[in-house]
Amino acid sequence: VSEYSMKNHAALMERAKKVVPGGVIGHAALAPAAHPRFYHRGEGCRVWDVDDNEYIDFMCSFGPNLLGMNHPRVERAAAEQRALGNCFTGPTERWVELAEELVRRIGYADWALFQKNGSDATSLCLTLARAATGKRKILVADGAYHTTSPWGNPSKTGVVDEDRAHFLYYRFNDLESVRRAVAEAGDDFAGLMVSPFKHDAFVDQELVDPDFARGLREICDAHSALLMMDEVRGGFRMAPRGSWESLGVHPDVAAWGKGIANGYPLSTVVGTESLRPIAAGLYSTGSFWYSAVPMAAALETLRVLDEDDVVAHITKVGTEFRTGLDSLAKTHGFALRQTGPPQMPLVLFEDDDGFAKGTFFTTDALKRGIFLHPFHNMFLSAAHSSDDIAQTLERLEASFAELARAVSDGSL
Amino acid sequence: VSEYSMKNHAALMERAKKVVPGGVIGHAALAPAAHPRFYHRGEGCRVWDVDDNEYIDFMCSFGPNLLGMNHPRVERAAAEQRALGNCFTGPTERWVELAEELVRRIGYADWALFQKNGSDATSLCLTLARAATGKRKILVADGAYHTTSPWGNPSKTGVVDEDRAHFLYYRFNDLESVRRAVAEAGDDFAGLMVSPFKHDAFVDQELVDPDFARGLREICDAHSALLMMDEVRGGFRMAPRGSWESLGVHPDVAAWGKGIANGYPLSTVVGTESLRPIAAGLYSTGSFWYSAVPMAAALETLRVLDEDDVVAHITKVGTEFRTGLDSLAKTHGFALRQTGPPQMPLVLFEDDDGFAKGTFFTTDALKRGIFLHPFHNMFLSAAHSSDDIAQTLERLEASFAELARAVSDGSL
Repeated sequence: VSEYSMKNHAALMERAKKVVPGGVIGHAALAPAAHPRFYHRGEGCRVWDVDDNEYIDFMCSFGPNLLGMNHPRVERAAAEQRALGNCFTGPTERWVELAEELVRRIGYADWALFQKNGSDATSLCLTLARAATGKRKILVADGAYHTTSPWGNPSKTGVVDEDRAHFLYYRFNDLESVRRAVAEAGDDFAGLMVSPFKHDAFVDQELVDPDFARGLREICDAHSALLMMDEVRGGFRMAPRGSWESLGVHPDVAAWGKGIANGYPLSTVVGTESLRPIAAGLYSTGSFWYSAVPMAAALETLRVLDEDDVVAHITKVGTEFRTGLDSLAKTHGFALRQTGPPQMPLVLFEDDDGFAKGTFFTTDALKRGIFLHPFHNMFLSAAHSSDDIAQTLERLEASFAELARAVSDGSL
Repeated sequence: VSEYSMKNHAALMERAKKVVPGGVIGHAALAPAAHPRFYHRGEGCRVWDVDDNEYIDFMCSFGPNLLGMNHPRVERAAAEQRALGNCFTGPTERWVELAEELVRRIGYADWALFQKNGSDATSLCLTLARAATGKRKILVADGAYHTTSPWGNPSKTGVVDEDRAHFLYYRFNDLESVRRAVAEAGDDFAGLMVSPFKHDAFVDQELVDPDFARGLREICDAHSALLMMDEVRGGFRMAPRGSWESLGVHPDVAAWGKGIANGYPLSTVVGTESLRPIAAGLYSTGSFWYSAVPMAAALETLRVLDEDDVVAHITKVGTEFRTGLDSLAKTHGFALRQTGPPQMPLVLFEDDDGFAKGTFFTTDALKRGIFLHPFHNMFLSAAHSSDDIAQTLERLEASFAELARAVSDGSL
């Protein structure tokens, strides 16, 4: 513990503040002030910050690192493509192969289009819904995060009212609230966007009620509106072929991203046959959207996903993590609220105003080489072994003990 | 010529059409039907399509390949960073170094923020302008292309009226039209976006009138509105430190992208000191926006840009290309309209309804190993040598002769 230092970090942040507004903005800044912002290297489930502090990483870059950092097979496939070239005036063979793979893999997918960011994909779904239906109103879950574009940015700074003119809001897992929003949309209901489970930051996660999922499908069908799924965060961690595959509820169109190419920048929209001519008529493009290296990386990532049965593995180690945390918490007199799927765990302390306990606990854990998040869901990867989880829990025992001491001596 | 084949291409397009709406959408589809869509490999200024046809490439991936494909120095810098890691839970040292470099390089830049697409950057400029001024109206040049987001997509399919509620349009190089739009905006004028020169597809390009540039600065100042420059396409090809640097006209904020990292996906918004607190307050982020490899590539790209005096080089070879084309055209009885800066040439034939001559000429050129565009500006790179240009012109002599034959025998 004594070796833990943030000296380089502080110096780098001083430099950063001179040339980047706030030093670091975006999701990396969504962490307690004492948490590191700057990283130096990574390998598997381990990352080292700019002070060479080593962590077992439970954030996986907020999702992209599905198999762990610098995965040998993915890097080899990427390197082979890179030798041929990455960014051309159009696509390569990889474009076709990856679209074929997604259509083969995802039951409802008859076609795919490629982008870079999750936001590109979710925004394209809206355009598609409006183009396909000739209607305008979009329903999204209250508090859900689908984009940083003005239509859905959590901040309203610089956003004009018109950016959200045609959005109506429902509550996740509450069909009555959906029906109210649909009634309000009247004959202008173009589509409804939903995440495979509720994974908003700061609050408990919520798995989907199968009746809710089926109800959404029925409501959208009854109104000739598109059911749009935002798989950007949950996709390939919940299930390898679509998060609601086991429910038998299929969206008309879905946005995928983050983990699809194990850290290489790529997102995709997949959709059903009837939407194909509409999708073909959209002008949707970007300077780097044809790039072949991320597509080669995605093809290999999806191969590994299947061959190594990654979803089963991360569910198993996520459950070990969850069970171990619960047991440690109980031993030290704490109650945890652990929600969401075990492979994307959110861990909140009961009775924890302002996340004071969570912040103390995760900050102490950093000094013991464990990187957690106090109020955002975390992510498991294929690189997390049962040994890594055991080592994590062993170290977190001390963090629970420190937390108990801080609570009992009144410093928290 | 007899060896030129599109056999693999046709087969791949058949496969593509089954799994991608239209087979290929986006800017790669903005070319005559006979032009290839799919690429196999690239090196310097040469690309090979999926039939292994070799071309001297004058599109440079619509901009990103500023130094030529697979540039050894850039690839080495990228590989070094890749060994450490690319996509982390936050930024790396490269984030700070690149922001420092941009602030050092660009006269008006006091800070930088990073994104992936040009669209991310131009859209962020609008949010910033509205946040900074508390006003809503944005002025853009009629016909200019700044984004595929609904506020500026060339297509209105799936776009709702509200997406463009607060946009007003002016004509490039026409201050009177700007003043009219400003008057219409009244006290709600937040900012004006402009490209360093008019580079709309399909029509002649237009260099900026220095009085127009200075007038924009005065008008924006007089109305406390932001002057926003879209450097995504022109940046680093027009000049290494800002396309209007030599005019002494500085925007308040500018979007850069495409060539900045020689094909690695990166864009940036840079701005002035007074906007720093506003920029720090925006929530602006993406899954891959902290990625370190593109930033390492950008740092090396900018070093090469300076050390090899790339802007001077591409201006020189672009001028050789332009002069040679004019001479060949004259010899064969054609008049060309060559517009824009020589390093980003647009070549149109006079009296060419529907680009019939341009399409015939560029399609014939493909068979001789020259990749041109009939109605979009092209791009020179550091990898184009005077020998490449000489070889290009030598081969294009035959294409002009073929075109003359087609015109004289009435088949065109």
